[in-house]
Amino acid sequence: MMAFERPIRFEEVDAAHIVFFARFLSYGHEAMEHFFSPLDGGYARLTETRRIGMPAVHVEMFFHSPLRYGDIMRVETSVMLLGKRSATFRYRMFQKESGVLAAEVRHKVVCSDLAKIASCDMPPDVRALFEAHREPVPVSEQ
Amino acid sequence: MMAFERPIRFEEVDAAHIVFFARFLSYGHEAMEHFFSPLDGGYARLTETRRIGMPAVHVEMFFHSPLRYGDIMRVETSVMLLGKRSATFRYRMFQKESGVLAAEVRHKVVCSDLAKIASCDMPPDVRALFEAHREPVPVSEQ
Amino acid sequence: MMAFERPIRFEEVDAAHIVFFARFLSYGHEAMEHFFSPLDGGYARLTETRRIGMPAVHVEMFFHSPLRYGDIMRVETSVMLLGKRSATFRYRMFQKESGVLAAEVRHKVVCSDLAKIASCDMPPDVRALFEAHREPVPVSEQ
Amino acid sequence: MMAFERPIRFEEVDAAHIVFFARFLSYGHEAMEHFFSPLDGGYARLTETRRIGMPAVHVEMFFHSPLRYGDIMRVETSVMLLGKRSATFRYRMFQKESGVLAAEVRHKVVCSDLAKIASCDMPPDVRALFEAHREPVPVSEQ
Repeated sequence: MMAFERPIRFEEVDAAHIVFFARFLSYGHEAMEHFFSPLDGGYARLTETRRIGMPAVHVEMFFHSPLRYGDIMRVETSVMLLGKRSATFRYRMFQKESGVLAAEVRHKVVCSDLAKIASCDMPPDVRALFEAHREPVPVSEQ
Repeated sequence: MMAFERPIRFEEVDAAHIVFFARFLSYGHEAMEHFFSPLDGGYARLTETRRIGMPAVHVEMFFHSPLRYGDIMRVETSVMLLGKRSATFRYRMFQKESGVLAAEVRHKVVCSDLAKIASCDMPPDVRALFEAHREPVPVSEQ
Repeated sequence: MMAFERPIRFEEVDAAHIVFFARFLSYGHEAMEHFFSPLDGGYARLTETRRIGMPAVHVEMFFHSPLRYGDIMRVETSVMLLGKRSATFRYRMFQKESGVLAAEVRHKVVCSDLAKIASCDMPPDVRALFEAHREPVPVSEQ
Repeated sequence: MMAFERPIRFEEVDAAHIVFFARFLSYGHEAMEHFFSPLDGGYARLTETRRIGMPAVHVEMFFHSPLRYGDIMRVETSVMLLGKRSATFRYRMFQKESGVLAAEVRHKVVCSDLAKIASCDMPPDVRALFEAHREPVPVSEQ
């Protein structure tokens, strides 16, 4: 699991005075970019230079409790599922002070060769990063 | 089913030169606002004056094919499921010219009293709108 | 002068419950894209195929009155200044119902060859469009 | 002068593959929020609890050099002008690695009582913060 914290920004709330629901998906991508930061040059070098990307094929989101301006958000990122060419991230967004879960996002990506626009096996350094943050398998499923 | 079309905007693409995946959820909200436009004052009057809103509790998204700058997007909105206090929208986003499905978003909302911050029954005019755009029940399920 | 109208969207307001100030610059670009829509393929074909773009070099913005969710915005676009390789757009954003001016944006762009990343003369069809929407010269300056 | 650094995000570039020009104004607000972070509860507590805000009345932006995905942006914030009820921020956004200035934003705000929707004198702690980051007066103007 990897985590980061940052304040909610003034422009991120909507007319209901809470964080706009689509922002949580944007936060998910922000968390994925943070996830890849241990790679040399991060997700930017992976996509722009090595031409390997992680386009989404499926997303599921659960909204539990609103976040507001003034809140600090804590995002915890882990790897729910890992295949040869695909992976599913789980991002859990918390209101930091209270520890209340605001939203959970599950984000399935497919490792892709951006030049050929086709799926490809994960490079070893990418796979190692996914492995390092894989969720423990529940005892009941072992 | 209700539909609208609009061009993809210059700022809506990302570093991969395709529409940023979280934009599709924003497009979903845009479609919901369009869906409520037959009500007097639309979603704005519903939320700001009547203090009835439709916060999301669950979202599922399927990404099929990218949209790019220069594309015209066609969004078709229908009501998949309708309960007493909740409903699930289905938004299908197409590349207009080709008719190719780019993404599908399923958006479950709960009718809420924004003053009490509690779920409530749908007002009759809101319910009538949902009923009018409900998907036909498949023969196999009748 | 060219004009278009559209409703303010739910996500476009900020924590002060008014349209976020940077949105007005985004609306300016939206207006510029609308301005180029008479060209075949619009600004998208101009930039993506013909590789001619209009990057900003200078912007000035005047904020007069807030816009809110529920407002219809009317944007009027005209050409304040026109040079051989540059032009300055003036966008005036109004609250449609009252006719009150919300903001004015002045946006200086330089016609650029996106392949060479260098300024270039405007193609004739682009220049003709600018000419057609040029502001009348005030009598005092004639 | 206050400064912060952060990476450009995947979604912040546009169809020209550079940071969308209106983002620089959003970065300016981000810098202003950072500027107020030494206050207890930051800009959020100032606006949401104390009901004092800093709406913009005028903005001027100079675009010098593009930022791209993969760049680290460094933002330097200082106070150009300080009146009794108004102030002008200067934000300078640099490409961190090269030190090249990407854009400069000048942002004039008016201290406002958000309950009365009227300008007001700056509270002492707010004024002290502006004073602390005021630009030195050039010798030629002394």
